[in-house]
Amino acid sequence: MNVTVRDRTRHYRTVAFDAAKNSVRLIEQRLLPHEFKIVATPDFRATARAITDMIVRGAGAIGATAAYGLAQGARAFAGRDPGKFQRHMDTVYQVLKDARPTAVDPVNAMNQVRLAMAAGETVEEQQTLALAAAEEFAHQDVQHCEAIGRHGAKLIRSGMNVLTHCNAGWLAFVDIGTATAPMYAAQAAGRKFHVYCDETRPRSQGATLTAWELAQQKISHQIIADNAAGHLMQRGRIDLVIVGSDRTLGRTGEVANKIGTYTKAVLAKRHGIPFYVAIPLSTIDWNLRSGFDIPIEERDAGEVLGAWGMTVAGRREYVRVANSGSGAYNAGFDVTPAELITGIITPEGIIKPKELRSRREQLAPSNDGTRGKNE
Amino acid sequence: MNVTVRDRTRHYRTVAFDAAKNSVRLIEQRLLPHEFKIVATPDFRATARAITDMIVRGAGAIGATAAYGLAQGARAFAGRDPGKFQRHMDTVYQVLKDARPTAVDPVNAMNQVRLAMAAGETVEEQQTLALAAAEEFAHQDVQHCEAIGRHGAKLIRSGMNVLTHCNAGWLAFVDIGTATAPMYAAQAAGRKFHVYCDETRPRSQGATLTAWELAQQKISHQIIADNAAGHLMQRGRIDLVIVGSDRTLGRTGEVANKIGTYTKAVLAKRHGIPFYVAIPLSTIDWNLRSGFDIPIEERDAGEVLGAWGMTVAGRREYVRVANSGSGAYNAGFDVTPAELITGIITPEGIIKPKELRSRREQLAPSNDGTRGKNE
Repeated sequence: MNVTVRDRTRHYRTVAFDAAKNSVRLIEQRLLPHEFKIVATPDFRATARAITDMIVRGAGAIGATAAYGLAQGARAFAGRDPGKFQRHMDTVYQVLKDARPTAVDPVNAMNQVRLAMAAGETVEEQQTLALAAAEEFAHQDVQHCEAIGRHGAKLIRSGMNVLTHCNAGWLAFVDIGTATAPMYAAQAAGRKFHVYCDETRPRSQGATLTAWELAQQKISHQIIADNAAGHLMQRGRIDLVIVGSDRTLGRTGEVANKIGTYTKAVLAKRHGIPFYVAIPLSTIDWNLRSGFDIPIEERDAGEVLGAWGMTVAGRREYVRVANSGSGAYNAGFDVTPAELITGIITPEGIIKPKELRSRREQLAPSNDGTRGKNE
Repeated sequence: MNVTVRDRTRHYRTVAFDAAKNSVRLIEQRLLPHEFKIVATPDFRATARAITDMIVRGAGAIGATAAYGLAQGARAFAGRDPGKFQRHMDTVYQVLKDARPTAVDPVNAMNQVRLAMAAGETVEEQQTLALAAAEEFAHQDVQHCEAIGRHGAKLIRSGMNVLTHCNAGWLAFVDIGTATAPMYAAQAAGRKFHVYCDETRPRSQGATLTAWELAQQKISHQIIADNAAGHLMQRGRIDLVIVGSDRTLGRTGEVANKIGTYTKAVLAKRHGIPFYVAIPLSTIDWNLRSGFDIPIEERDAGEVLGAWGMTVAGRREYVRVANSGSGAYNAGFDVTPAELITGIITPEGIIKPKELRSRREQLAPSNDGTRGKNE
């Protein structure tokens, strides 16, 4: 999307690849909204760390990052021995997979790259195919988000108040985003609406990233404490909820997303407010049979015990908010059951969560490399 | 409660009166948990500001502060003209009432003081009666909290996980607290349990005040993001919720409390988890007929846009977390309907919210000075 940095507007992708330097270029999202900076990871381990450390985050963005990371790892291999190359690639795959255990996108993205590589015979051919497949994954990601915007824009009418949680905007993808894609498309269609952004503690991606995106895009919005959505719904001030997903179970329609999503879905159900989840197809997990099987990442307690921000003097600092003698429990994600979800906005249209399964042929063409359609 | 400051444990009340200096002594709660400090307000306007600025907060604590503030204002009057004194007292009353419009405690507390003053004939008599009545209010507050602890302790069994929101601990009262009173009583009875404290954005009273109290008291606890309670409930990790209330409607059983309380009640209902509200009788509003009539204070957007905390260098600072081009909506309170509340823990026992009304004779003996039993 277009970003205005020092009075100049340029078009940026969240994730890109520098073939000459064999490095992945990422927007350093931890510095936003205070500073806009591009970082380049020198090798696949640094790329994996960028995922773990949340320099890059969001379903599509870490998918593309892992895909590029796999290509980066492949291209860094110096020898010509296919057996050694295969063992090297197994390591690269595992390191990138372990970078974010809750998410399915990196795995699906890397499987897509591995499937493409299998057509190559020599190491060199496989290296070339790896990069081409990673680029194709990123290209698909953008196209999917555009399609999500087209389908989801129908849900947003002028005068509506829309709630979103965390960031499933273009910063979470290669471009455009998922939860935000319908907003951007509705805006392009001339509709005027208001967005409430949950601040999304403990990492505050709503207050920092989503609010920054919406401000760049000049969409009317306000940040709210995560505690406030229930009150707004009770008072009739929210008409629609759109969130993203880190992993959606194709078999059950369950959605894993940032901690707090489940709470918003429970509230929306109580108030009869439509609750939509916007996802690219790569986010669908066709294997797991229950949301309870999704690994829920427990993150550092320090995230809950304090906050990163900008001091009055203009320094970016972490402040400890909580009592220093107290610990914290910090689950990164939660799981929302299908019954609370009005519809899943996919590039193929809006689908009831329970109907994902019957449409697997259409929804899982090439993204499920591990099992394909044979299972 | 007993507070350990610089290796010495002393007994402190949250609110106290210095008759010699005619000043109200308050624990400066905005500095907690980083610093423990007592402040003294020189006049009733400063006392009102201390309520508005949240040096003191919490139902009973601001009730006692307003009662003492009214006595302080009465005692500051120099003349002997009863008419002038009455006009002066009307001003004192209004200034203290306006300090926190959502709460009912200051009004009930001040009405109790005014009722006592009415027995005096001279200005001097009324001044003396005012302070005696304020001291009596503070004494009652402590006794009520003790009784709440006795009744509520039955709900807590060993091995339980208890959720609480915001701070309805002894810092919110003259001593002991309401939501925490059953915990302290259960601990005194030898039971071992664990408390999850919602951090309670935007002002983080859970992470700062409740966690600090529980740490002082050596009760096992962890802070969680407000987003995490739904996930914990879904995974069977919360057995009981106890919160406080800023205003409970005697006619309907609706409860106004810190923003986010309603959300926790909706979640508890979905999961069949008992949801209790602990209140002193002074918090009951017998007049309003609907929760929608409770004024909901909108607070400064800066609370949502950032956080106060301690830097690594040990400075207490505000950091702006959010995008600087974005605003915030910041409602301070929300209203929970009776159907979501398992029981109200009062000094008179645990009562179903819908049954408050039929027990008005018992519950509103002298605290409802404006209308008494005649209405």
